[in-house]
Amino acid sequence: MSGEFSALARLSAQLTALEPPQIGIGDDAAVVRSPKGEWLVLAADTVVAGVHADLSLTDLDDLGWKAVAANVSDIAAMGACPSHLLVTVAGPPDTDLDLLYRGITQAAAAWSCPVVGGDLANASILVVTVTITGSLPGPPIQRRGAHPGDGIWVTGALGLSAAGLRELRKVGKGATGLAPDRHRRPQPSVAAGLAARAAGATAMIDVSDGLAADLGHLADASGVGLAVDYVPLGEGATEQEAIAGGEDYVLAFTAADDAAVLHAFAALPPPMRIGTCQGDPNLRRILGRPFPQHAGWEHEWR
Amino acid sequence: MSGEFSALARLSAQLTALEPPQIGIGDDAAVVRSPKGEWLVLAADTVVAGVHADLSLTDLDDLGWKAVAANVSDIAAMGACPSHLLVTVAGPPDTDLDLLYRGITQAAAAWSCPVVGGDLANASILVVTVTITGSLPGPPIQRRGAHPGDGIWVTGALGLSAAGLRELRKVGKGATGLAPDRHRRPQPSVAAGLAARAAGATAMIDVSDGLAADLGHLADASGVGLAVDYVPLGEGATEQEAIAGGEDYVLAFTAADDAAVLHAFAALPPPMRIGTCQGDPNLRRILGRPFPQHAGWEHEWR
Repeated sequence: MSGEFSALARLSAQLTALEPPQIGIGDDAAVVRSPKGEWLVLAADTVVAGVHADLSLTDLDDLGWKAVAANVSDIAAMGACPSHLLVTVAGPPDTDLDLLYRGITQAAAAWSCPVVGGDLANASILVVTVTITGSLPGPPIQRRGAHPGDGIWVTGALGLSAAGLRELRKVGKGATGLAPDRHRRPQPSVAAGLAARAAGATAMIDVSDGLAADLGHLADASGVGLAVDYVPLGEGATEQEAIAGGEDYVLAFTAADDAAVLHAFAALPPPMRIGTCQGDPNLRRILGRPFPQHAGWEHEWR
Repeated sequence: MSGEFSALARLSAQLTALEPPQIGIGDDAAVVRSPKGEWLVLAADTVVAGVHADLSLTDLDDLGWKAVAANVSDIAAMGACPSHLLVTVAGPPDTDLDLLYRGITQAAAAWSCPVVGGDLANASILVVTVTITGSLPGPPIQRRGAHPGDGIWVTGALGLSAAGLRELRKVGKGATGLAPDRHRRPQPSVAAGLAARAAGATAMIDVSDGLAADLGHLADASGVGLAVDYVPLGEGATEQEAIAGGEDYVLAFTAADDAAVLHAFAALPPPMRIGTCQGDPNLRRILGRPFPQHAGWEHEWR
């Protein structure tokens, strides 16, 4: 067995490379040029019931919301704006499609990206795939681009989703509070991605696999080291949940100018500077310890 | 239980309507306008192993090819050109991703639409979802738009995929010949869609659910009746397979001017005129009989 990331790398090598500055597999979203020269951002995410969502703890509308939110987060992480959604549902005939689509429609309305197409098919398990398109108000903010000395920032507290899942497992479906709410209905921020762009962000990624794993992807792509000396804990989250829990859907970015960051976020929840990019790519420390080896979620493939 | 099409209609009503002339759910593909005013065509299709593809009869590379081909066919049916693909795979850890992606990559190369992104996730069954983007060289050819008196045309013989599946079930995986080949590797034609556009096609749809079912969709959208007096049988296909078998991925279109059609297809396999649109929308006859009631494949939903 091998991990998802090595499988992705192997398969990407089979695919036709895009002519730069277009971006294919390997960032939060693809960036392609249309025949008329317009830039288009594209991403797709799959949510599998029982793997990404435990339907004994969360409802189908929350699953639908999360499938859309994960895609919005990928668009936000490029410094882009969401435009349209396609939703395909493979599932058992007794799936409550109305409840599922209620959550999808609520999320589509929250981020102003209407569902314009998709597909319905029967399958023995529920698999919801959402594809999103987006537009770019400037060059894409990639995972690569961070320089030694750049500040490392996050746009929100971490570990809320993992803490919420822990609470849901303890209390059951009726659990209340910020953490269970965020687990059920993550809140990616397109505005934060645009503010990071305005702040001159040199690299950006969304925290979907876990802070350590995602900062690791950014550092791999940028060829920098990482020294993280502060991790803002979401309400009720443990340090471990904040470092390695996934699905927070806040943004992590790097930028050279602290004042420019604070200025760009003046009208938004203030981002938090958590560390500094290092010149030695082998140096990766978080709260005084080495980065965890297997910090985030990876699917298994042969 | 209700059928896929009524579930789609019910769910579409929940969704935000797009401002015309944009097209949302209800045609072969969506047509949306980008922030900069460019037209973009979007479609998505899901292939579920064991539902859409029997892996005891066909291989994973063929499943990958078919998932791409179904999407290319949707783009072709709008008179559009394919641009890019996103591929998401949910499947068991022991899925032979390399074989699956070989077929996907071969199809992507055949229609010059590179895979630029996607997702990999574990699931107990294999579900492959492909999303495609396309560009429009002119207004989209919709399902609506056919007028009484327009000729009804198809761009290829019918029933090959169903006949091929029958042969594969009889002979097994090693079955040879045109029909099994087309079942394994359908061949939608983007050029045929563009020629239909050049011929002044008034409405178009791809034959994916079966000729009778898909012409029914076109007639429903256009408010016309149908008199079909000829059904070109693919090599080895029965009349029933040609009328009700799905996955042929040829195009069916309507046009007012026969000579313009033959002229536009001069450099392509000649399309065949199979009937005439009728003024009475309740009149639907094929080879002298009423249209079959449940002619095509529909997934079941509660």
